[in-house]
Amino acid sequence: MQKIRAIIIREHGDPQAVAKLETINLPSPTVGEVRVRVKFAPINPADINVLEGKYPIRPELPGTPGVEGVGVVEECGADVNAFAPGDVVLLPHRFGTWREAGNAHASELVKIRPDVPLEQAAMLHINPATALVMLREFVTLQPGEWIVQNAANSAVGRCVIRLARHFGWRTVNVVRRPELVDELKAAGADAVLVEGEKLSAEIKSVTGGEPVRLALNAVGGDSATRIAGALVPGGTIATYGAMARQPLKIPNGQLIFQDIAWRGFWITRWYQRAGKSAAAELLGELASLAARGVIFTPVEAVYPLDQIAAALAHAQRPQRAGKILLLCSDS
Amino acid sequence: MQKIRAIIIREHGDPQAVAKLETINLPSPTVGEVRVRVKFAPINPADINVLEGKYPIRPELPGTPGVEGVGVVEECGADVNAFAPGDVVLLPHRFGTWREAGNAHASELVKIRPDVPLEQAAMLHINPATALVMLREFVTLQPGEWIVQNAANSAVGRCVIRLARHFGWRTVNVVRRPELVDELKAAGADAVLVEGEKLSAEIKSVTGGEPVRLALNAVGGDSATRIAGALVPGGTIATYGAMARQPLKIPNGQLIFQDIAWRGFWITRWYQRAGKSAAAELLGELASLAARGVIFTPVEAVYPLDQIAAALAHAQRPQRAGKILLLCSDS
Repeated sequence: MQKIRAIIIREHGDPQAVAKLETINLPSPTVGEVRVRVKFAPINPADINVLEGKYPIRPELPGTPGVEGVGVVEECGADVNAFAPGDVVLLPHRFGTWREAGNAHASELVKIRPDVPLEQAAMLHINPATALVMLREFVTLQPGEWIVQNAANSAVGRCVIRLARHFGWRTVNVVRRPELVDELKAAGADAVLVEGEKLSAEIKSVTGGEPVRLALNAVGGDSATRIAGALVPGGTIATYGAMARQPLKIPNGQLIFQDIAWRGFWITRWYQRAGKSAAAELLGELASLAARGVIFTPVEAVYPLDQIAAALAHAQRPQRAGKILLLCSDS
Repeated sequence: MQKIRAIIIREHGDPQAVAKLETINLPSPTVGEVRVRVKFAPINPADINVLEGKYPIRPELPGTPGVEGVGVVEECGADVNAFAPGDVVLLPHRFGTWREAGNAHASELVKIRPDVPLEQAAMLHINPATALVMLREFVTLQPGEWIVQNAANSAVGRCVIRLARHFGWRTVNVVRRPELVDELKAAGADAVLVEGEKLSAEIKSVTGGEPVRLALNAVGGDSATRIAGALVPGGTIATYGAMARQPLKIPNGQLIFQDIAWRGFWITRWYQRAGKSAAAELLGELASLAARGVIFTPVEAVYPLDQIAAALAHAQRPQRAGKILLLCSDS
């Protein structure tokens, strides 16, 4: 048994008001369990929604938020052979990572190579995983093939740009703010367009009419309709976010005569379906890509756990240049 | 060379105004060709759209409408071994069937068993084909599994009811007019519901919460959103029509968190992709189902070619009880 500090929510509501730092008891790891000292955990948009009670998964209260994070093995319970103190591990999906330490069953932990920067390792589980799985799940992309995405400046969007460049695919990226065009091109985007009514035609112009079979949508509303309008018959638009908070509108003719498939993607469901070994394989690949710098997620600020209110406020500011990380323990 | 009568359109516009009966020359069948005397051809909604110039496929003008029909082989050109005079054949997709006779390449014709009522054979190519392919294309249905559809009283909808009953699947059917409930139940529907805001919940109540993985939509707008809302995570809604003339509206959360796939279906594209042998296999199966009475499409009226204007006017009346057929030749 040891005392640790953890963020606890006892009710849903305004994030800064409901997230409190408390001291709780952590039992020693039992058979098959591993105690992990948590190093870094990000504040993701979904965490904000969870705190507000607006997410489809509502964890039991009281509970600790945090869907992903990285830690170091501190102590192994009986019958744990695959881990040793000092191993760097990714915490299980939806573990509740905003805490100094926690116990997890060994089968739920993924050991990663130790040369991944810990800040980057903490952020592999959601956004880079979403980007990489979406690039493979719906269409088998050929070398040089174009894809189109909106929300290109989001964490997932930037990851898509980097992964596409690495794997030899080309990206048409859509943003709302013109000042992002040069920045995303410098980050590896093949083309960057500004949202507008003529978007479908502009995408076709950029690709020189080469077929685009995959569109990634995190905006919704008109933006989604437009990028779908640039797809060839048989193409797929995958929706993983809804920043515009507008329902998707599909022209009937596009769906019927152009045979455009509208699919959804939620990494939580992917983890549920894929199983532990496929998930571990994905995370191992992402760790390698992060170690080589292919995946890199900018960080705007790091807050210790006792500054959770300031961290949450910062995470909700629009137009950040990077993620907000929690430093969960510095020992 | 022989003189035949055919419906010709020389411009797009009001169907009754632009469709004219003309006498044209039909050459003798050349090498590999077969001359077919056309017996029956239906007036489908898509034909009306073609005449109006509102269909994605705009045939060359002047041209003859009619996407499907049945005929009898009259004469074979050289090197035709698979057909003999008297064979009953389905005409090629989008042949232009509103004519007394025509020549087709033998490889494009599908010979069917002679015990299918000719009126029924004339209508297999579009609606029953759409129904049967949709029931197999998106989901591998298990015995007893539920499906849901709107436009249940349409030609495709009624075919879905009959095919589902035959293959052992159960249907929840949605209609706008309450007076259709008993009629569709008598036709084999397991459940019939009237369109309304509580539809998703009513569907779940009818199925007793059993998972529904396939929805068929020919209405669009709110109706499509509602039947999609009754699907289990991972389910598919296939759209093949848009009677409400409203765009599809997809709640973002349904797509992302429920993993509902929105797909389109157009039988013309299916024929393009499937190839001749798969198409012939499908049509042979449909012919067998029609011979056994599993597939039966009601006919409201039959018009000879020289009453094309009256036939077109009749085909555009709402709330018909069956299809309008053209009797293309009575010899």
